Amino acid sequence: MKVIKDSVHDHIHVDGVARDLLDTPALQRLRRIKQLGTVAFVYPSANHTRFEHSLGVYHLACQALEHLEVEGKRAKRVEAAALLHDVGHGPFSHNLESLTYRRTGRYHDDVYALLAAGEVGEVLREHDLEPEAIADLVAGEGRFGQLVSGELDVDRMDYLVRDAHHTGVPYGTIDPGRLLRELAFVEGELVLEAGNVQTAESLLVARALMNPAVYSHSVARISKAMLRRAAERLLDAPEADVDAVTLQRMDDADLLVALRSCEATADLSRRLDERTLFKRAVWAEIDAVPGGVIEADHEKIRSFEREIADRAGVDDEDVILDVPGRPSMTESTSRVMVSGEIRRLEQQSPLVEALRAAQYSQWRLGVYSPERLRDRVGQAAAEVLGLDIDGALVSEVRNGDGLETTLDQFVD
Amino acid sequence: MKVIKDSVHDHIHVDGVARDLLDTPALQRLRRIKQLGTVAFVYPSANHTRFEHSLGVYHLACQALEHLEVEGKRAKRVEAAALLHDVGHGPFSHNLESLTYRRTGRYHDDVYALLAAGEVGEVLREHDLEPEAIADLVAGEGRFGQLVSGELDVDRMDYLVRDAHHTGVPYGTIDPGRLLRELAFVEGELVLEAGNVQTAESLLVARALMNPAVYSHSVARISKAMLRRAAERLLDAPEADVDAVTLQRMDDADLLVALRSCEATADLSRRLDERTLFKRAVWAEIDAVPGGVIEADHEKIRSFEREIADRAGVDDEDVILDVPGRPSMTESTSRVMVSGEIRRLEQQSPLVEALRAAQYSQWRLGVYSPERLRDRVGQAAAEVLGLDIDGALVSEVRNGDGLETTLDQFVD
Amino acid sequence: MKVIKDSVHDHIHVDGVARDLLDTPALQRLRRIKQLGTVAFVYPSANHTRFEHSLGVYHLACQALEHLEVEGKRAKRVEAAALLHDVGHGPFSHNLESLTYRRTGRYHDDVYALLAAGEVGEVLREHDLEPEAIADLVAGEGRFGQLVSGELDVDRMDYLVRDAHHTGVPYGTIDPGRLLRELAFVEGELVLEAGNVQTAESLLVARALMNPAVYSHSVARISKAMLRRAAERLLDAPEADVDAVTLQRMDDADLLVALRSCEATADLSRRLDERTLFKRAVWAEIDAVPGGVIEADHEKIRSFEREIADRAGVDDEDVILDVPGRPSMTESTSRVMVSGEIRRLEQQSPLVEALRAAQYSQWRLGVYSPERLRDRVGQAAAEVLGLDIDGALVSEVRNGDGLETTLDQFVD
Amino acid sequence: MKVIKDSVHDHIHVDGVARDLLDTPALQRLRRIKQLGTVAFVYPSANHTRFEHSLGVYHLACQALEHLEVEGKRAKRVEAAALLHDVGHGPFSHNLESLTYRRTGRYHDDVYALLAAGEVGEVLREHDLEPEAIADLVAGEGRFGQLVSGELDVDRMDYLVRDAHHTGVPYGTIDPGRLLRELAFVEGELVLEAGNVQTAESLLVARALMNPAVYSHSVARISKAMLRRAAERLLDAPEADVDAVTLQRMDDADLLVALRSCEATADLSRRLDERTLFKRAVWAEIDAVPGGVIEADHEKIRSFEREIADRAGVDDEDVILDVPGRPSMTESTSRVMVSGEIRRLEQQSPLVEALRAAQYSQWRLGVYSPERLRDRVGQAAAEVLGLDIDGALVSEVRNGDGLETTLDQFVD
Repeated sequence: MKVIKDSVHDHIHVDGVARDLLDTPALQRLRRIKQLGTVAFVYPSANHTRFEHSLGVYHLACQALEHLEVEGKRAKRVEAAALLHDVGHGPFSHNLESLTYRRTGRYHDDVYALLAAGEVGEVLREHDLEPEAIADLVAGEGRFGQLVSGELDVDRMDYLVRDAHHTGVPYGTIDPGRLLRELAFVEGELVLEAGNVQTAESLLVARALMNPAVYSHSVARISKAMLRRAAERLLDAPEADVDAVTLQRMDDADLLVALRSCEATADLSRRLDERTLFKRAVWAEIDAVPGGVIEADHEKIRSFEREIADRAGVDDEDVILDVPGRPSMTESTSRVMVSGEIRRLEQQSPLVEALRAAQYSQWRLGVYSPERLRDRVGQAAAEVLGLDIDGALVSEVRNGDGLETTLDQFVD
Repeated sequence: MKVIKDSVHDHIHVDGVARDLLDTPALQRLRRIKQLGTVAFVYPSANHTRFEHSLGVYHLACQALEHLEVEGKRAKRVEAAALLHDVGHGPFSHNLESLTYRRTGRYHDDVYALLAAGEVGEVLREHDLEPEAIADLVAGEGRFGQLVSGELDVDRMDYLVRDAHHTGVPYGTIDPGRLLRELAFVEGELVLEAGNVQTAESLLVARALMNPAVYSHSVARISKAMLRRAAERLLDAPEADVDAVTLQRMDDADLLVALRSCEATADLSRRLDERTLFKRAVWAEIDAVPGGVIEADHEKIRSFEREIADRAGVDDEDVILDVPGRPSMTESTSRVMVSGEIRRLEQQSPLVEALRAAQYSQWRLGVYSPERLRDRVGQAAAEVLGLDIDGALVSEVRNGDGLETTLDQFVD
Repeated sequence: MKVIKDSVHDHIHVDGVARDLLDTPALQRLRRIKQLGTVAFVYPSANHTRFEHSLGVYHLACQALEHLEVEGKRAKRVEAAALLHDVGHGPFSHNLESLTYRRTGRYHDDVYALLAAGEVGEVLREHDLEPEAIADLVAGEGRFGQLVSGELDVDRMDYLVRDAHHTGVPYGTIDPGRLLRELAFVEGELVLEAGNVQTAESLLVARALMNPAVYSHSVARISKAMLRRAAERLLDAPEADVDAVTLQRMDDADLLVALRSCEATADLSRRLDERTLFKRAVWAEIDAVPGGVIEADHEKIRSFEREIADRAGVDDEDVILDVPGRPSMTESTSRVMVSGEIRRLEQQSPLVEALRAAQYSQWRLGVYSPERLRDRVGQAAAEVLGLDIDGALVSEVRNGDGLETTLDQFVD
Repeated sequence: MKVIKDSVHDHIHVDGVARDLLDTPALQRLRRIKQLGTVAFVYPSANHTRFEHSLGVYHLACQALEHLEVEGKRAKRVEAAALLHDVGHGPFSHNLESLTYRRTGRYHDDVYALLAAGEVGEVLREHDLEPEAIADLVAGEGRFGQLVSGELDVDRMDYLVRDAHHTGVPYGTIDPGRLLRELAFVEGELVLEAGNVQTAESLLVARALMNPAVYSHSVARISKAMLRRAAERLLDAPEADVDAVTLQRMDDADLLVALRSCEATADLSRRLDERTLFKRAVWAEIDAVPGGVIEADHEKIRSFEREIADRAGVDDEDVILDVPGRPSMTESTSRVMVSGEIRRLEQQSPLVEALRAAQYSQWRLGVYSPERLRDRVGQAAAEVLGLDIDGALVSEVRNGDGLETTLDQFVD
């Protein structure tokens, strides 16, 4: 058995199949992929990796299994899936998902293929585990899949605490021990036992507070949009000779260096390296945005960008239009036992609707450009997108008074 | 200057008038009054005192004053008020407030008198401060009073973090540094600057989560009700010769020993010392409770108790009817700058209504009795109070499935 | 099974015999005995109790037993002993030990009798455990006794971490998880496995750093000496009618109130309540102290005090002579496997001798008196004790330049 | 002013020249250089960077300056130096220092040149600061230089706490607030004020405990030796076209990718990426090592390696001989006021000698090779180096029983 010191869970005991999986290249690669991608531009301490997160998820899975009295092969499968659940992640974790999805049809690398191949596949088979069954769990299939990837999964329990610890933001502090102790299987569903509506709410609230302060902080969004733009150009640059599948398999270092080396991306890369980020030329509440923009697909977005650039008389590459998807709230369907029946949290807690409304009210469309072009780009964007914004103010940050709720560090 | 090591804020620098106030008997007495009273029956580590809390409030007040660039006498007043804000507390802090209010017309000891008298008065006058002005600040008067006792006060910022630290419950973790940095005075009101709706929400959410898990945990409520009952009997016992004002000036040790020594309270005292607590005979959602009970005054409550005891054929003293007041939510009126104007948080945040609704749904009436009498008392109480509860279940804990949202430790 | 939230170990699972022992009066009493006695005069947050410490020791014992693969009755015995190890403590824990030892021949209450009697005895017998066997473990007998009370015991592992947490002093941070994982039984001795000299040293170092900063801080020593003096007078005051055995069974509240109520102790009691502590009239390196003083028994000490008071022309009760015993270092005999054999830490680690020397160099004799009498008492004490101290300076604090190594808070 | 959230010091306020330096490429580059290099192979959470450490050092410097009442230009210089003190670091921080020293005559990049050039130079001049004066401070010159780089510097205070926080090892927990508060300048020297021998010792002890557990952990040493070997080959590979100065200016990503891309280093690179590390073929106490080996220069070491490889019949590149330099202990000369004069800590504290002895006893020579060659290489190395080791055991890890005092995680 290995004992690994973790800054969040202290000692993590790694045994059996997990012990052997630890040394596979697929897992070791996660040491070089930051958990929160460009969030480190906002919180300089947020350099934790998918590797330590994977260990944490494995650790909590073991505790859940012990509590649920699951043993034998079934338990081994969940342990393997917990440890492996992020092996498909590309560089900078979620930052490039929408890009790789457009190009490969998959947000992540093909987990089924990854788990069957190479050393991971060998280890799994040596331990008499079928890679496909593990991949099913990673995909959230079946009742044990809910433990790995569902509304009450150990993934979420680890990342909330870990991201809070490493950013220094105190809002993600849930109580994993309490959550794990209250898990049960009822009618094939993973639920929290009776008396735990508030326990379920605490998960929801933690993410609702972490979202604007960390995950969707405007500077994290801007730098992510720049990174995505750069990666897209890299894929399109013939001299770089990088396709989307190759991209997905890179680690953070590979991507950083590839962007530096390719002429088409050198400028954006330099901006990211030196943190000379684009600024917000427009930052608009979604209510103020005509429907067509919200629904636009990637091609449409690109054509908006070109039109804005055109009208502003600037280069194409100096305009980024960032339209985040509709806010979601997975935790709203967490299941809790109430009056002897399984209820979805949203049926039970008035907080769900309130937090959903809060999320909508924080939903912002952004147009970003180099600082010196902010005014022109802002003005042009307002016209092109049909934004109802007072012309004179368009290039100012539209933080909507009380709606930009994030920490202000590094914001300007 | 004194430097004091605090387990929450690390080093606290105490200077000037605060330095001199520290050594007064009134402040030193707070070392012997627990911050959370009977909550320690639920969370054994929650033994922190009003003294360390007072130091913490003083510390945060100094930071707020520095940020607000308040200096001179005005600052000294606030510093003194922050340090002294709890000197009026009786033993076990808030636990006996309703009792002393009934008997003396005051929740706490007379702060105006306390600050003018004795060593505290001397120190204040030596520093050229008027006791009355300090007492006004403690009472929340004026704009600086808001800093000491208001919706955005440093009292709340300290206790949420401190209570979380000492109970081990992770929900109270707000970010005092962030809060203090965003305070401003606008039109004579203490407000959070623009962009801080979420900052204000974090205070609200922290208290909403701490409430059921800590402050209103059922075991804390039961033991508090027992303590209050015992104290009431002590006041009424001629041989004890304790009046309400004397009671208010006791510390925790005085009260514990007085209860042990008085025959009328010896039994309750032994129960508290040995943690042989009463159990919930009824635990009913307020919706299920006829209005008359909710609105009942103390005399009416006492007569309900006698009636229940009578019908159950048990002793008067074996029935406690606990009807907590209507849930309040001070933080709902916190002021935040939005679109250049001062707005109340409740105007701006959908969370306020949701948390208020959640609070109402957690509001419970309790009837407590010794464990062996639970069934009989529960049945009788349901009948007397006109509760619409299935008879067979009446003596079971009515945790309303998903509504008793507290940690279960020490609950039975 | 009960789950208890602890501010140090997070969730503690209490089961079996421990679950039943928890509710006994003997254990509940520990909720009202401070872990560190008068140390709270130095560190205001240090209000943790013997109860939470007992839970922590039980928790670590369970982990050690699991690691050592001890099960069944043997394990139950150790669990019970861990939880009960402090039930014999008197009020203010170690503060009055020397006094009760002089009067009763025992530092603590009679643990053998305590465990056999009352509810504790009942619970033990119900679980088929012999009280005497448990008391043997508490006394450190046998190899399992070493786990409860020995050089590598779980008692020490808990208190170092807990005292650091509650005082805010960072020096006690050992790694209990690491320590527990390296324990083994070899030839009937509890040892650390090979490769753990440094692990053993970390325990030693933690205590060596905590000692002057916390346990022997001069203010803690002064207030402890005052408390001990007051308690002694209480025992000697006919009207108080308290004997040493009664004293040992009090809790902190009982003692505080008894001291307040007795005329002979009212003044010292008021001083302690208001923190108007005696000051150091002499604080002398032991090297500078004639041997006779160091070796003096209690009677001799008392006669020195009287002589000093006499010469200074002050009241007897205004002089306290505090001669702490020779520094000890239990951890020096911790056993570690080296080259396949059991070695004492002191055979292996140069740190042992160095820390022992450091401890000796910090060893101080103190003479305390009310502040206003400091000069006179200091001068008289120097003469009576034959201290080689320059007369003009005798009433100044003799912190020996670099030898008073404690935090300075609350020191004056 | 910028406010940055740090996981160690919470909020860091950055103002003036520091504010402007923050956005320079030289400082932003530190975001991509790990603080502890290959230590992350032992402690997976240890991914913190030189950037956040630089912020922390700046933060503590500001506090020290405030305490010392240093203001104006003098203070600005120290602030700039604190923030910039690590800009000369190459990839993986200290890991490649000995290599770059051999090749360039400098451990780090030329700090004088770096501070005078580019944006850093511009910012300094704009703030009327002379780059050379800042570089002098970074080099520890003058009394303010002692604050930036000396026995009592803020660099050390930050890294001990930060490395403890991120590795999870509890031993580095000193009390920076206490240390800063006790600093003073006496006769042009930075000293700790009287009464602080133990404060100085705590720094010493923290590093002495962190050393074997973290900084010199055997796995960190092995991976560092592999990285250094790979980097050396990179410099020597004509096709890579990397010289030592270029190497020094790389960040971690550059180096990782360069090693992957170069044929000569691809194998070592793959081993590092996949954590298929070399193992210890010999791990010998320095006492057992003939003097010639200890004193050997780089050429001599290389020739030993070739001879060992030759005798073992393996490839040159499969043998690494790792001879760390003589242990040093900067803190031993910390200055503390004792009896009114400045004393070196080593004059005053018996701990210095003891810890020095402990360090010597932990000093190990290592010979590393791929796992499958361990036996042969170990045997050959013993013969070549004249080690007095029993042949049969030579390829086993010689952890010297109780002398390998590190955490065992990831060790095999």
